[in-house]
Amino acid sequence: MSATSLTSDQQRVRPVDIIEPPLNDVLLIPLINNALNEDLGRRGDVTSQATIPAVKQASLTLTVRDDGVVCGLDLARLAFEQVDSSIEFTAHTHDGAWVTKGEILATISGNARNLLTAERTALNFMTHLSGIATATRKVVDLVADYPTQITCTRKTIPGLRSIQKYAVRCGGGRNHRLGLDDAILIKDNHIAIAGNITKAIAQAKQLAGHLIPIEIEVDTLQQLQQAIDAGAELVLLDNMDPETLREAVAMCKYQQNANIKTEASGGITPDDVVTVAKTGVDFIAMGYLTHSTTALDIGMDFSA
Amino acid sequence: MSATSLTSDQQRVRPVDIIEPPLNDVLLIPLINNALNEDLGRRGDVTSQATIPAVKQASLTLTVRDDGVVCGLDLARLAFEQVDSSIEFTAHTHDGAWVTKGEILATISGNARNLLTAERTALNFMTHLSGIATATRKVVDLVADYPTQITCTRKTIPGLRSIQKYAVRCGGGRNHRLGLDDAILIKDNHIAIAGNITKAIAQAKQLAGHLIPIEIEVDTLQQLQQAIDAGAELVLLDNMDPETLREAVAMCKYQQNANIKTEASGGITPDDVVTVAKTGVDFIAMGYLTHSTTALDIGMDFSA
Amino acid sequence: MSATSLTSDQQRVRPVDIIEPPLNDVLLIPLINNALNEDLGRRGDVTSQATIPAVKQASLTLTVRDDGVVCGLDLARLAFEQVDSSIEFTAHTHDGAWVTKGEILATISGNARNLLTAERTALNFMTHLSGIATATRKVVDLVADYPTQITCTRKTIPGLRSIQKYAVRCGGGRNHRLGLDDAILIKDNHIAIAGNITKAIAQAKQLAGHLIPIEIEVDTLQQLQQAIDAGAELVLLDNMDPETLREAVAMCKYQQNANIKTEASGGITPDDVVTVAKTGVDFIAMGYLTHSTTALDIGMDFSA
Amino acid sequence: MSATSLTSDQQRVRPVDIIEPPLNDVLLIPLINNALNEDLGRRGDVTSQATIPAVKQASLTLTVRDDGVVCGLDLARLAFEQVDSSIEFTAHTHDGAWVTKGEILATISGNARNLLTAERTALNFMTHLSGIATATRKVVDLVADYPTQITCTRKTIPGLRSIQKYAVRCGGGRNHRLGLDDAILIKDNHIAIAGNITKAIAQAKQLAGHLIPIEIEVDTLQQLQQAIDAGAELVLLDNMDPETLREAVAMCKYQQNANIKTEASGGITPDDVVTVAKTGVDFIAMGYLTHSTTALDIGMDFSA
Amino acid sequence: MSATSLTSDQQRVRPVDIIEPPLNDVLLIPLINNALNEDLGRRGDVTSQATIPAVKQASLTLTVRDDGVVCGLDLARLAFEQVDSSIEFTAHTHDGAWVTKGEILATISGNARNLLTAERTALNFMTHLSGIATATRKVVDLVADYPTQITCTRKTIPGLRSIQKYAVRCGGGRNHRLGLDDAILIKDNHIAIAGNITKAIAQAKQLAGHLIPIEIEVDTLQQLQQAIDAGAELVLLDNMDPETLREAVAMCKYQQNANIKTEASGGITPDDVVTVAKTGVDFIAMGYLTHSTTALDIGMDFSA
Amino acid sequence: MSATSLTSDQQRVRPVDIIEPPLNDVLLIPLINNALNEDLGRRGDVTSQATIPAVKQASLTLTVRDDGVVCGLDLARLAFEQVDSSIEFTAHTHDGAWVTKGEILATISGNARNLLTAERTALNFMTHLSGIATATRKVVDLVADYPTQITCTRKTIPGLRSIQKYAVRCGGGRNHRLGLDDAILIKDNHIAIAGNITKAIAQAKQLAGHLIPIEIEVDTLQQLQQAIDAGAELVLLDNMDPETLREAVAMCKYQQNANIKTEASGGITPDDVVTVAKTGVDFIAMGYLTHSTTALDIGMDFSA
Repeated sequence: MSATSLTSDQQRVRPVDIIEPPLNDVLLIPLINNALNEDLGRRGDVTSQATIPAVKQASLTLTVRDDGVVCGLDLARLAFEQVDSSIEFTAHTHDGAWVTKGEILATISGNARNLLTAERTALNFMTHLSGIATATRKVVDLVADYPTQITCTRKTIPGLRSIQKYAVRCGGGRNHRLGLDDAILIKDNHIAIAGNITKAIAQAKQLAGHLIPIEIEVDTLQQLQQAIDAGAELVLLDNMDPETLREAVAMCKYQQNANIKTEASGGITPDDVVTVAKTGVDFIAMGYLTHSTTALDIGMDFSA
Repeated sequence: MSATSLTSDQQRVRPVDIIEPPLNDVLLIPLINNALNEDLGRRGDVTSQATIPAVKQASLTLTVRDDGVVCGLDLARLAFEQVDSSIEFTAHTHDGAWVTKGEILATISGNARNLLTAERTALNFMTHLSGIATATRKVVDLVADYPTQITCTRKTIPGLRSIQKYAVRCGGGRNHRLGLDDAILIKDNHIAIAGNITKAIAQAKQLAGHLIPIEIEVDTLQQLQQAIDAGAELVLLDNMDPETLREAVAMCKYQQNANIKTEASGGITPDDVVTVAKTGVDFIAMGYLTHSTTALDIGMDFSA
Repeated sequence: MSATSLTSDQQRVRPVDIIEPPLNDVLLIPLINNALNEDLGRRGDVTSQATIPAVKQASLTLTVRDDGVVCGLDLARLAFEQVDSSIEFTAHTHDGAWVTKGEILATISGNARNLLTAERTALNFMTHLSGIATATRKVVDLVADYPTQITCTRKTIPGLRSIQKYAVRCGGGRNHRLGLDDAILIKDNHIAIAGNITKAIAQAKQLAGHLIPIEIEVDTLQQLQQAIDAGAELVLLDNMDPETLREAVAMCKYQQNANIKTEASGGITPDDVVTVAKTGVDFIAMGYLTHSTTALDIGMDFSA
Repeated sequence: MSATSLTSDQQRVRPVDIIEPPLNDVLLIPLINNALNEDLGRRGDVTSQATIPAVKQASLTLTVRDDGVVCGLDLARLAFEQVDSSIEFTAHTHDGAWVTKGEILATISGNARNLLTAERTALNFMTHLSGIATATRKVVDLVADYPTQITCTRKTIPGLRSIQKYAVRCGGGRNHRLGLDDAILIKDNHIAIAGNITKAIAQAKQLAGHLIPIEIEVDTLQQLQQAIDAGAELVLLDNMDPETLREAVAMCKYQQNANIKTEASGGITPDDVVTVAKTGVDFIAMGYLTHSTTALDIGMDFSA
Repeated sequence: MSATSLTSDQQRVRPVDIIEPPLNDVLLIPLINNALNEDLGRRGDVTSQATIPAVKQASLTLTVRDDGVVCGLDLARLAFEQVDSSIEFTAHTHDGAWVTKGEILATISGNARNLLTAERTALNFMTHLSGIATATRKVVDLVADYPTQITCTRKTIPGLRSIQKYAVRCGGGRNHRLGLDDAILIKDNHIAIAGNITKAIAQAKQLAGHLIPIEIEVDTLQQLQQAIDAGAELVLLDNMDPETLREAVAMCKYQQNANIKTEASGGITPDDVVTVAKTGVDFIAMGYLTHSTTALDIGMDFSA
Repeated sequence: MSATSLTSDQQRVRPVDIIEPPLNDVLLIPLINNALNEDLGRRGDVTSQATIPAVKQASLTLTVRDDGVVCGLDLARLAFEQVDSSIEFTAHTHDGAWVTKGEILATISGNARNLLTAERTALNFMTHLSGIATATRKVVDLVADYPTQITCTRKTIPGLRSIQKYAVRCGGGRNHRLGLDDAILIKDNHIAIAGNITKAIAQAKQLAGHLIPIEIEVDTLQQLQQAIDAGAELVLLDNMDPETLREAVAMCKYQQNANIKTEASGGITPDDVVTVAKTGVDFIAMGYLTHSTTALDIGMDFSA
């Protein structure tokens, strides 16, 4: 799922960094402890215990080995702190920053054994999340000339929902709903059981309350018309070809004084995202951002 | 990281299924509950609650949309069972089986709302793990004519170590160590602090006990010779070109009555894995199998 | 906080039951286990162990001792099931139903010791939640002749957010946001730091994404005008007297083609809720529903 | 359940503060983290993130808006500390203190976003527990001229047993048993199954061991006599009218050299508590203290 | 700490079984899951996976290899059930029963792999708890001719408090307090800080409430006299020689109409327990019962 | 299971301390919190609350009352820190050190109430683990003149696997496998189902992967020969008499160029361990080290 259509021109100038408010530590610590426990097992880092004197001090530098967007610095810091609260972690950049190959992201110093014990957990978080942030940023930059925004989906790695959604934001993307409870998304099966689009939307409005947004998925322009007539405010246009999509967007924007927000979905990749953006759709949902991205290569250099 | 070098010939005959013992439910249930909780949030599936009558029964079929290896059927089953213990889950295949596009993997029937509530969690586990199993199987098949085995690394998604390692086994791969505690892997930093390879191996043997295997990473043939002299039984040959690798393997197999096991690592991809296998190395470690694979596309078809 | 203004006329006809989709068991079981553990402590129910033979069977009936709305039947069922999975729990009504003094809500039968062990935990959940549902229903009924809807707040008992919000729904109320993450509510402090209402709304729209609703709290009509000009779609009218409130609602409904939703808050009680509803406001937020309601009296009658 | 019988005279002089040893942080931190997690959800405080600069510092004052007893200062402190360990929390009073409207309870300073993120969780604990402490104190003061002590019951909000019991102590009340395991309370059902009061007490003494107190509930003077004859040391006099209660107390104090402790229960409210106290009963159990009290109004004032 | 003073006469007749109410499963399941997780680790039972076909059925018998008291049958059952809910566990005896070498305690049948996976966890609980129950029973039997009762202490294995206390009861012993919160035990340090015994007891009575028993530890008869004068109801006579102990008991029973309960402690072993019992002391506390007992040998016999 | 065969000569010279790398705090904190919670219960240390002023400062010394090996200092430190992070804990020795009666192990100072609250939890960990370390050290010293090493088993106290295994290492012992997943141990039942030793070993090699050691249990020399022929690298010689054991060792060391490692097991005690060691066996497995050792007596002396 490589973004090969990203031209070298776009890479020449360092992209503007994204400023994304961090997640609170209280949400991250359980994830860190869980990850450390599965790596330390029932005895801890036997290799470092065997080869490194107990009092040895050292420092690590966290260096990125490819261009991309940093994500996960707080998780990396916490990985070291939870192993050894006396370790000092100094970040040289921030989540959301575009960094280039060779750039030093952070310096960590303290007990040598403990540094090596926490290293892999820190890197596993950072390379995964930075991979997501980078993949997101690449498609966000591809459609930078259009008002279209890139969003994620609920196709996330189990257990990492909140931090993967955060990584998407660090890459300049927008979050779709966080879970099943904070927005309604009426899909084909729901419509089929409810009877038709009109009934489905009416029932959703009835149950939802005023703080739960309602979105409805449609596959055809006929369905879209029914959704518009039923008072939809946000529609997911699924698997439409660009021509149809363009027509759908026009129906949502210019018909009936409507100002319905539109979202496109259905296996859209970096290769066709610009084509989709040109249709004028407000949002493009891309599941691969969280379920199939490549880790960003980040390494730790150790100096004793 | 697509395995494009996999020829269409290899796909023509359905590969032999892999039989891998399943993980115990007691290890999986906490993962499932954690995943369901992050998706259900503080209210559950508002969409299905709004549009589906409480007593509605339905069934789902789990269909694979691409060729690959199935992995995660028990997790899918448990996702449904934890939401509603009266749901019936019938698997039509098993983890480790090679399946082809369109094949039905499982049929699930019960309360319609609850089916849709658990669907995404079940799929998120299965598509991720089947992606790993499939990617593993593809490289395993590529080197099928050689005695070389494919192994994973500790570069895993935090929290999913045990199930990702399981997915690698379902794809025909071998596991490297499960964590920091069940095997010693002496790397460059450990050697540097210990002083030299001889000391590092001696210290490891001293600490390890008889049930903790010891592996040492070497970058050069000089280092390898030191490791052999120090009595290494398993060496990780890191970032060596094929020529050097071949020579290293020869040193390990034929020198000094040695029968040292050899493992190659360092950014090896499906594109060069056969070249590496030809060197006669016993194991090839591939980090991308767990940190950067593409999900296998699996869908749920609903019939009310 | 008694709803004494509820006339006896309104009580004469049994109110229509509310049908609210239940919460999934997987969300409730941790709450139940936590509650059972704090009651059973380190030895369990010593009294029943001492006085009741191990094999004694019995049955309990759950009877309401005052009129009100039932809430928590699933929690009661789970309390018994988690103590002893062979206990049979038969509900004779459903959450959201209006019940009258003396009505039997459920029959539970099985091992006598285990019935008594789980009884208090089951009742503690039910009396608390039914108290919330009943209090909610009473104010909902008071404003039944108006389009106004009653909503809860984030002033909940720590640890019970999801089930208290559910109880409000069972009473016919609407939920305000579930937490800090699923909607934006800009209050005075936020406005002060952002600089002014215009900036605060602009920043919120910038960060929120399309699935996070934005509400802004205003105290005066001047502030309201700024909010309207800044494109607010939902305003919280805080601590306004009825006159001002009426004017505020008019500004939101009829000015500038605006169709802004309005919510009133600020210590509104059952005594003045009708007055507030008469202003035409869309929602009335009442914190006491979750932080200060009286438990509904429910008892268990035991027959051995 | 308002304590309207509390005369204004009693309020004129500030009541003496109660000194109650605090609960250990290790017992409180899981409650805090649970509460923060349900409020922060999967993204945290979106409003503050949107409107408050990341580096902004501020301070909050915690001010009580009604007269009452403070309870929960440690929980408030921990709510802030768990969100951000660099926040400074300075208490100006202590749990158990009687405070008057407008009094500042604590000052908190640090990162503005994090202050607002933790604010509601801190307040939800404090207003609830201070409400219990205040309600307790009011009835304790009502019976201050009598040796009678006020106790709580097991009718608590699930999950909050230990802190609600603590709040009762902060209000000058006494705790009844903490759970099913630390004292025996033989009720009507137990007596019925055991056969009679004599057998029930004998069985309880047999099982209990020397460190588990035994109490028996009786409804009539006949039952009481049986309990006395069976060697009861503590009796719960349930739903007796004042006349009967007085006679029961006399039987327990003066008959047979008995010095049996007596406790009254059965829907006793602030309105009739003095009448009950006048009977000479040692303890009065009041369930509403933990299941139906009104929160004490406490606010946070923010200054940036 | 072998009970060698147990004569062979006492063993000739099978001792009467003890009937002890079981602990609720909801208290045991977390212990079981924790134990299974530490044994299964990140992959489960590799040996059984390798050598036993997936569908193989088998049965196990749980046989005791020495005489003693059974304890932990529910934990054993749950170990199998949590691994595989289809396993059938049939107990042939009950906790508290005295069993003799070779007796079959339970039969378990089901999937062969899963039987072997759960076996060690089941045995680790049973052998440990049966060891405690047996050691307790042996000293209980030694003092059977005296009214003295044997009690445990808070010197327990961390994490197993509730089940070790249960094992003591299954052996016929009595529990001392379950933790720091359900009884007051004033020791030398407390007395020293409080100033003297009189003040310490007064303060304890003040704080405790009517359902928390108060015990005071004294080392000398002078201290004992002070405790009696201060109204102590239960005294711990620590490290007194038999002569002094006898005198202390007399002071507690016959002086001043006192009927103070007495408990002896201080390294008392099976070898001197009868001597201590002869002093007439009510209770003898023995820490070794929970911190240093020998496991009862129990084996699993497998038949496929 | 006392090591009475340890001569007084061996005790005269202080044994050399063992240096064992500590376990990471992140693995220990959950154990500590669990232990503190079961001791503090729902109210905490009522005795200290009653008798010790809130601001009182004091110090404790941790003194060993018998000779032995220290183990658990980090757990003791964490017990105090988790109760009160301002307590200062100064260790005067280290885990693995041989200490003699009366030696002060640590000094702890801070709030007097909190010191006493954490004391028992700290001691319960230390006395248990030091008991294991001491028992291990005693047998390790008994066989010090032989190359034989002492190992533990999976017969551990549930929940304490990792720290008991650590205690064995602190006593100079070696760990056997940590759980079911990190090594294969083929026992009689596995062999029976697999068909024979040859098949069982072949299947194990097939499944295990290169980092999971394989051991096979044999009872007779015939079985041993089969195991050798099947390529076993490590054999568990179960319940063999010394004569047979000696012959078995010879078969493993000198036959067929074999260099098979040998381990003896089967109820070996300190009394016969030297006899077993003399057979030349590499490892002796002793289950009692973790399931039946006596706690090392350690006391806390308090000075206010």
